[in-house]
Amino acid sequence: MLRGLSAFPLTPITNNNVDEAAFVHLITNLVAAGVDSIGAVGSTGSYAYLTRDERRRVTELAVQHAEGIPVLVSIGAIRLDDVLAIAEDAQRAGVKAVMMAPVSYQQLNAEEVYTLYDTVTRHLSVPLCLYDNPATTGFAFTDDLLVEIAALPAVCSIKLSAVSTDPTKGKERIDDLRARLPASVTIGISGDWQAATGFAAGCDVWYSVIGGLFPEVSLALTRAAQAGNHRLAGELSDQLEPLWQLFRIHRSLRVMAAAAEILGVVGPSCLPFPLRPLAGEDKEHLHAVLKSTGLV
Amino acid sequence: MLRGLSAFPLTPITNNNVDEAAFVHLITNLVAAGVDSIGAVGSTGSYAYLTRDERRRVTELAVQHAEGIPVLVSIGAIRLDDVLAIAEDAQRAGVKAVMMAPVSYQQLNAEEVYTLYDTVTRHLSVPLCLYDNPATTGFAFTDDLLVEIAALPAVCSIKLSAVSTDPTKGKERIDDLRARLPASVTIGISGDWQAATGFAAGCDVWYSVIGGLFPEVSLALTRAAQAGNHRLAGELSDQLEPLWQLFRIHRSLRVMAAAAEILGVVGPSCLPFPLRPLAGEDKEHLHAVLKSTGLV
Repeated sequence: MLRGLSAFPLTPITNNNVDEAAFVHLITNLVAAGVDSIGAVGSTGSYAYLTRDERRRVTELAVQHAEGIPVLVSIGAIRLDDVLAIAEDAQRAGVKAVMMAPVSYQQLNAEEVYTLYDTVTRHLSVPLCLYDNPATTGFAFTDDLLVEIAALPAVCSIKLSAVSTDPTKGKERIDDLRARLPASVTIGISGDWQAATGFAAGCDVWYSVIGGLFPEVSLALTRAAQAGNHRLAGELSDQLEPLWQLFRIHRSLRVMAAAAEILGVVGPSCLPFPLRPLAGEDKEHLHAVLKSTGLV
Repeated sequence: MLRGLSAFPLTPITNNNVDEAAFVHLITNLVAAGVDSIGAVGSTGSYAYLTRDERRRVTELAVQHAEGIPVLVSIGAIRLDDVLAIAEDAQRAGVKAVMMAPVSYQQLNAEEVYTLYDTVTRHLSVPLCLYDNPATTGFAFTDDLLVEIAALPAVCSIKLSAVSTDPTKGKERIDDLRARLPASVTIGISGDWQAATGFAAGCDVWYSVIGGLFPEVSLALTRAAQAGNHRLAGELSDQLEPLWQLFRIHRSLRVMAAAAEILGVVGPSCLPFPLRPLAGEDKEHLHAVLKSTGLV
């Protein structure tokens, strides 16, 4: 199920409340483009800043407007009670999968992370995507730990944070992981600038931030890679390099929030306090990049 | 007010609930020893894992049993609404100060961190200690930003995460900070193995993890330093080096939780899931260290 393009939309915030109309508009845009799955209320959807009720409501809206496209949501939270409650809400809303990074205040160790996934997956009725996100959790998975957790019956996919920029090394690692993972577990890449490299190395799915706002260009890259045309996928990625640079400097969330403002599909300052979309000169530069890359 | 030894007790958890009797016992121990302030519901008190109601209840217990010793609590939370509600609860409970690290899911930038402190301090009626904790927040303050935020009227102290191990460099930095900070703002050190170095460099206060469980030895070090006897403070710290090593390897929270188990003042597995106190051989080694250092 989790293959191809998994698009992660923003959860637009206005005056400390979710802008539901703007969110539904983003979902409708993804449905029209035909993405393979929708990763609602993910990191790009500011899940960690939303209340349980907000997460439930946004999940329901995503499923209601997805027209059958599989929806997955993040269930990560600092406290186990909250993780399980949010997972239950998501399952009732009709998600096809959930995603979880090892969110914590104190950095966890490998044993604690295994226990977390083991405990949470025992409570799930839908499959789980394991989410390696060291930038937000402070915890970096080893491949051994990925393999160990992916052997839990509920795990359906792993979302990697990085692949080697060396194509040979990248392919060797994915081949090695593939050989050690259950056949049912797909391998995904995040960090949008690594998508083409990840597909060329053998990844099955791109967990995509840009895909949440610009699904067409993301699908073009994905479909090229899926057809084995990695040269074209690489060229499409290279064309977006000015945008990837901004992602690496400011983080993708602040850039995509400002891009959504520029497109006029969200209100001003659509991120949860105190996070701020690019503004001033940075936003003007982004606007120029979006124009030069043909995104607006 | 925030000078000398600020002792940070655990918030013992049993079966997913706060063990109130064990917590009160820890507070009573601090009162008997005569610590200068009590940092309840801090990082060592697992604040980020507790519900608002639990934080309020533990704060009330701390104030009720502190017998006039100033209590401060952490008000950090990912969402601003929660920060303000927790701060209001704490103020009603009678805390003398609050503490806040720039907790976030997405790492904040300097501008966002300033906005966070500016916004929160406008809502406070008690002073705030700025808490630099890059290990849990992913955000490291520059001295310039510390100075900028400490100029906000509510700020009464800054809690540094590190001082240079080079005594001359350490003193130069604290002297420089002192010259740029309002006279009312005290400078504190965390990371217990740096306490003696921090005092020698000119810090006013030790925000102490070990002080939450072993206040006597922590007070001996603090009083030596306050009397200008930095050689004795250094010797007392050096005697605890085997414990500091465990702090650096396993983090102080897991070590202190296991030490509290060894003392018999908390139940088994007193940390919030999935965090675990040292166990097995690590715990046996800790027990040997506590014996050899005279702590048990």
